[in-house]
Amino acid sequence: MNKKNHKANLVISCPDRAGIVFETTRFLFHQGANITSLEQHIEDGVFFMRTEWDRSSFRLLTEPDFERAFEEIREKFQMNTSADFCETKKRIGLFCSNEGHCVADLLARIEIGELPAVLVYVLSNSENMRSIVEKFQIPFFFVPTGNSFEHEKFQKKIIQENPTDVLGLARYMKVLTPEFITEVGQKIINVHHSFLPSFIGAKPYHEAYERGVKLIGATAHYVIPELDRGPIIEQRVQRITHSQDIEKLKLMGRESEKEAFAFAIRKHIENKLIIYKNRVIVFE
Amino acid sequence: MNKKNHKANLVISCPDRAGIVFETTRFLFHQGANITSLEQHIEDGVFFMRTEWDRSSFRLLTEPDFERAFEEIREKFQMNTSADFCETKKRIGLFCSNEGHCVADLLARIEIGELPAVLVYVLSNSENMRSIVEKFQIPFFFVPTGNSFEHEKFQKKIIQENPTDVLGLARYMKVLTPEFITEVGQKIINVHHSFLPSFIGAKPYHEAYERGVKLIGATAHYVIPELDRGPIIEQRVQRITHSQDIEKLKLMGRESEKEAFAFAIRKHIENKLIIYKNRVIVFE
Amino acid sequence: MNKKNHKANLVISCPDRAGIVFETTRFLFHQGANITSLEQHIEDGVFFMRTEWDRSSFRLLTEPDFERAFEEIREKFQMNTSADFCETKKRIGLFCSNEGHCVADLLARIEIGELPAVLVYVLSNSENMRSIVEKFQIPFFFVPTGNSFEHEKFQKKIIQENPTDVLGLARYMKVLTPEFITEVGQKIINVHHSFLPSFIGAKPYHEAYERGVKLIGATAHYVIPELDRGPIIEQRVQRITHSQDIEKLKLMGRESEKEAFAFAIRKHIENKLIIYKNRVIVFE
Amino acid sequence: MNKKNHKANLVISCPDRAGIVFETTRFLFHQGANITSLEQHIEDGVFFMRTEWDRSSFRLLTEPDFERAFEEIREKFQMNTSADFCETKKRIGLFCSNEGHCVADLLARIEIGELPAVLVYVLSNSENMRSIVEKFQIPFFFVPTGNSFEHEKFQKKIIQENPTDVLGLARYMKVLTPEFITEVGQKIINVHHSFLPSFIGAKPYHEAYERGVKLIGATAHYVIPELDRGPIIEQRVQRITHSQDIEKLKLMGRESEKEAFAFAIRKHIENKLIIYKNRVIVFE
Repeated sequence: MNKKNHKANLVISCPDRAGIVFETTRFLFHQGANITSLEQHIEDGVFFMRTEWDRSSFRLLTEPDFERAFEEIREKFQMNTSADFCETKKRIGLFCSNEGHCVADLLARIEIGELPAVLVYVLSNSENMRSIVEKFQIPFFFVPTGNSFEHEKFQKKIIQENPTDVLGLARYMKVLTPEFITEVGQKIINVHHSFLPSFIGAKPYHEAYERGVKLIGATAHYVIPELDRGPIIEQRVQRITHSQDIEKLKLMGRESEKEAFAFAIRKHIENKLIIYKNRVIVFE
Repeated sequence: MNKKNHKANLVISCPDRAGIVFETTRFLFHQGANITSLEQHIEDGVFFMRTEWDRSSFRLLTEPDFERAFEEIREKFQMNTSADFCETKKRIGLFCSNEGHCVADLLARIEIGELPAVLVYVLSNSENMRSIVEKFQIPFFFVPTGNSFEHEKFQKKIIQENPTDVLGLARYMKVLTPEFITEVGQKIINVHHSFLPSFIGAKPYHEAYERGVKLIGATAHYVIPELDRGPIIEQRVQRITHSQDIEKLKLMGRESEKEAFAFAIRKHIENKLIIYKNRVIVFE
Repeated sequence: MNKKNHKANLVISCPDRAGIVFETTRFLFHQGANITSLEQHIEDGVFFMRTEWDRSSFRLLTEPDFERAFEEIREKFQMNTSADFCETKKRIGLFCSNEGHCVADLLARIEIGELPAVLVYVLSNSENMRSIVEKFQIPFFFVPTGNSFEHEKFQKKIIQENPTDVLGLARYMKVLTPEFITEVGQKIINVHHSFLPSFIGAKPYHEAYERGVKLIGATAHYVIPELDRGPIIEQRVQRITHSQDIEKLKLMGRESEKEAFAFAIRKHIENKLIIYKNRVIVFE
Repeated sequence: MNKKNHKANLVISCPDRAGIVFETTRFLFHQGANITSLEQHIEDGVFFMRTEWDRSSFRLLTEPDFERAFEEIREKFQMNTSADFCETKKRIGLFCSNEGHCVADLLARIEIGELPAVLVYVLSNSENMRSIVEKFQIPFFFVPTGNSFEHEKFQKKIIQENPTDVLGLARYMKVLTPEFITEVGQKIINVHHSFLPSFIGAKPYHEAYERGVKLIGATAHYVIPELDRGPIIEQRVQRITHSQDIEKLKLMGRESEKEAFAFAIRKHIENKLIIYKNRVIVFE
């Protein structure tokens, strides 16, 4: 755990040119970094890289120090960069509805220290999860469905008063309006209970059953204004047979939903995701 | 292998009523069957069953004998039945285009005795696979794309002159017209290179890449007049990452295509498939 | 949920003879059962079957009524039977050590109503999980490692004072002695953090890493006096790569452990498991 | 395909020190390489890297040119390197026994151009596969089991007269002696029909059945003198149920065997494997 405190990581995307790896690693090397991993690839002439280093002997002590020192290279290559010196736990907010398995799963992971994050609040249009959430002394906000305008206003207020690094829609069955998504301007991760792009919409297990697919799945993705069309972070599937009815599919599907969602949240807070052209690059 | 010759199987579907399992197993028991497996389930009030028995002491020696003796029960319960005494190898015809991996895979399986079937012919709109098919002394028919009417006429002629138990579309990239499918009136199994219902159409790997999915797949299904909408027999998937380009997806996807196709063909010739409401019941 | 109350199931094993399915289904039919599923298979001359029926019109109202009425058939075929009329929630006891992910996962599943069971107590040789367990008003018993005799005595006391349908070892890292297992005489399900029979013992992830396997796994099994050799109920695996170190394997492996364990516990309380010759038959 | 001719790759392992990525990429950059991928990781203080570049503008035209120019860096960092300019198809020899599915699968892949390799010969202690191998004009050598000394002498002769880049044991059921393996001194890839380290030896499916595992698998690994203990390249698994007997497991297992074997052979000829401490680093 303490080791984490000596880690830093840097994620880069920029137009591909000769010399990017060379100049970046030279910079890190000269500043005293010991690079422990480096993943890099190129796609349509765009260069992506994530590198992690031990900063026990690193001369740049804070993220702002790093930003200043690295600026020349960043500008030279027109890089988008994101550096993380891993000094504080990331903060998560969750929205959910009456089905609480993704919330309960994340709560358990955080409580036992498996996911190094702080769950800041849970907002729901159902009272179902209040009891379990409050057991953990986490604020629970109930927002009645009904007046959509008031609803969104309340959501926005909660989000603004409780800043987080990511907002997770943990089976939140109320659609966020494009305006809301745009205005909130924060990274939102949703879990959809199908193997997207199959079965967009509210009843994917029914549709999966009717279509007779032999695998069901779940998809964690960043939210964009278009419903269920955001960049996919993770997908999980399970084999099913003709003998499983819709209720059984729902029960089984929860496993995939929990895994895909927890995986996506973890990768996000570990600074391992880049969105490029509605696709997500997921570093190891 | 010889053991197979003493096996028989019976597949039943009918409206659910009390007594079906009871009367069927009583009948088999009284005729000297030793039941070795029985799978049964009920869906929307419809009853489905497949049973297999050792017929070394079975008093009914041929399929027609069985049909006659079982008729009373069949009528009483309004059963659709399909009985197989497993006396001859099933016959397969294949259509393919320039990508021959599914054909080559099936050829290999048949040649080494893994799939107990006879490959009767291969028809293709490409000459690519002629050489390998003819190495195995299997008739290869080339049909040039071009005049669609002539094309279908030739296809029909081949099908009629070479009767088979199933026609496999082993990555045949020419769409069969609804008229053709209806008129031919034979069971056709297609393999589509996506995880249906995602990515219907001709370029699923491109679409999968663009959409940024994290798993690619293949689907083997019975063909119906509506393109890529037939009852699904089998689906296979593989994890992919952002670093794999479209060419890599195609290469990887071939594995899923071959497996799903060979699995579906095998289940069909083993009499383990029932179509119900555009879904396929796949017995073990 | 209410529908469950009208369900009943029966699990049978006995020497194979003609007529078992016939006589059993006849019996159920005559008593007013509507059979909703039936799975049956034969192995080395032993017959196994599980059937489920709707008992809304079933004439036998309680399990003892059923036992009495079915006795003649049971004796005729020398059946081992287990019938469940699904009237009460099953009771679970858990032992754990300092790693609490399997306990936390089960707690979450029970709390949100996904697993219809009662968690009666948690016993641990670590205080780690006390806080989360007690949040749910579930008794938590701490037993210090140290004097093994006292330790086992305390375990036995807890087990005897808190009768349950199954005892789950949710990553309990203290080996139970053969004497203890024999004496307790209760079904115990353990989750081992490897793909058994590989990597028996205390440090499977280290061994997996050293051996360079490309998949890691977890195994849920019934406990027998021989360590890690009991009948396997479920196994789950995940792909790994050379770039993942032992800490990462442990983190990833937890997913498989939780799934295998929860799956096994569920199947057990649903009366879907039969042990035969150190193998487990898992009904659908 | 032509694009391949402009590719080159370099695999490096060496003690970890600051500056390796930096100096290597600087070298490639100055020689006119356009790096298209770079994978790197560190383990126990050992540094591993594989990089691929487009050599259309690369100033070093041949592998020997490259070796000479890169020598200074290689010596400075005490690197083990392997560079491949991808100019010729790799050559494969195969040994098999009476079960020919892995050979037939590889034949099919090579024949349709999926695997860019030349199958130089097949040697077998069974005549089963002669017919199919000779259809493809590939030399087939039969070596009767019997006198082990003569047997190995013949094997060595074939290997020496038919130099290949890799020897594949495609379900070759005769154990190679440690002396033979040492003396031949060539990279050998074996496929074992279990999920190693479980079920070493000749009858893994029987053992898997007896032990009641819920997944069966196959393992492709480099051969070392100790039987079934060599560094693992790839493993594949499939779920099984209690209802599948040993014959069914064998049939299903063939799928995993074929995939693991073909995958390993492909990675080997693509220069994507490094053996380190009985583990294999598999580059993407």
